[in-house]
Amino acid sequence: MWQVHCFPLCPFSRKVRLAMAEKGVAFELRRANPWEGSDAFFALNPAGRTPVVRDEGKGITLIDSQAICEYFEETEDKAPLILGTAAGRAEIRRLVALFDEQFFGEVTLPLLNERMKKRLVLRSSPDSKTLREAMRLAHEHLDYIDWLIDNRRWIAGAQLSLADFAAAAQISVADYLGGIDWSGHGEARGWYRVMKSRPSFRPLLTEKMEGLPPPPGYNDPNS
Amino acid sequence: MWQVHCFPLCPFSRKVRLAMAEKGVAFELRRANPWEGSDAFFALNPAGRTPVVRDEGKGITLIDSQAICEYFEETEDKAPLILGTAAGRAEIRRLVALFDEQFFGEVTLPLLNERMKKRLVLRSSPDSKTLREAMRLAHEHLDYIDWLIDNRRWIAGAQLSLADFAAAAQISVADYLGGIDWSGHGEARGWYRVMKSRPSFRPLLTEKMEGLPPPPGYNDPNS
Ligand SMILES: N[C@@H](CCC(=O)N[C@@H](CS)C(=O)NCC(=O)O)C(=O)O
Ligand SMILES: N[C@@H](CCC(=O)N[C@@H](CS)C(=O)NCC(=O)O)C(=O)O
Repeated sequence: MWQVHCFPLCPFSRKVRLAMAEKGVAFELRRANPWEGSDAFFALNPAGRTPVVRDEGKGITLIDSQAICEYFEETEDKAPLILGTAAGRAEIRRLVALFDEQFFGEVTLPLLNERMKKRLVLRSSPDSKTLREAMRLAHEHLDYIDWLIDNRRWIAGAQLSLADFAAAAQISVADYLGGIDWSGHGEARGWYRVMKSRPSFRPLLTEKMEGLPPPPGYNDPNS
Repeated sequence: MWQVHCFPLCPFSRKVRLAMAEKGVAFELRRANPWEGSDAFFALNPAGRTPVVRDEGKGITLIDSQAICEYFEETEDKAPLILGTAAGRAEIRRLVALFDEQFFGEVTLPLLNERMKKRLVLRSSPDSKTLREAMRLAHEHLDYIDWLIDNRRWIAGAQLSLADFAAAAQISVADYLGGIDWSGHGEARGWYRVMKSRPSFRPLLTEKMEGLPPPPGYNDPNS
């Protein structure tokens, strides 16, 4: 059985878990806190990052969320998520990278640092300037999603794809950390409601990070 | 004809140019300096990043170096670079991500900021503490390459792959910026000499960033 080593608020692990669930690949969760820098975790992944996906029986260890998603794309027939023509697949991968790198770097990571790491690990208070800037940039990303959803049915085109799950994974973590304000983002909000109501999404929404409760409405698919 | 929009020291553009050259895909270079934030460049790529690869005739615009490499992997038969079993391909993609994200973030980007951007754009002097830390981390990455090359023929396994080009692209930029010290890294150095001597690599080594000459020996395949 596959094991996904991660912590509840790792957006890349959420992307992987969503893709695996959509494809019907069974897995169990193993808790890993990369900030603890444990020897056991570095032995699993020399880069010290989550997610790590492993099947001990098969002797396979997969690292890097995109490498992991490509692996299941190649090995599972069900629910293709990187689909269409070569150019269409490039568009999906462009948008996955946009959310994995830019949304993460500008929004999710500062929120994780200020609201999770400072509270649970460093025991210091968040920097309000950093938080304001992250939330300003979140609005820019939501504007872009509004524009995409105004022009296409899903994030990367006519079909639901990995780009939708990459975007929703980042947003779900930012939302848990109080960084998402939907006002003025009707299209993005409508799209995210649809994503939230998928069976693959349910387990993520009920999961909690100990010591850090989500804001009210976080796990309500209609909010 | 494909056009690669980039600047000489963009490591992701170098990865793409190496992959395209290996596959025999013809292209011409178009200069783009992302730090200028020009409207024309944002119109090409809303993320404001190089590389952008475009064929106006075909009406195709490709963005994100990994999405671009996957595109040519899917559309060109020659010189497969993401090859082998699904697990082998995952290992290649893991290592590409390691160099694209961690080597870039820890070594190439601080070197670009301190030695290129401060000199050519900000007209200020580099911060020596940041440079020392980048060069310390470069040694850690070279140690890891030593270990890989001690255990396998190429970076990701028995075959030359995109992981070799991703690693060599980052190292070539760091080397141009004086950030690579090969002492104590015999295996990595031997592997990099082999990479440098490939015909696909030659154009990169003779290219210069105006106002910023490379150190002596940079374009000598035997050094
Ligand atoms: N590109 C990687 C990024 C993984 C990543 O940055 N994970 C974070 C947790 S959200 C981490 O482990 N950070 C610890 C570190 O970078 O040291 C992926 O997609 O898997
Ligand atoms: N994941 C992207 C990263 C591209 C990237 O970071 N490019 C740099 C130049 S080396 C850039 O354009 N930076 C400007 C910016 O991020 O605003 C890729 O692989 O293409």
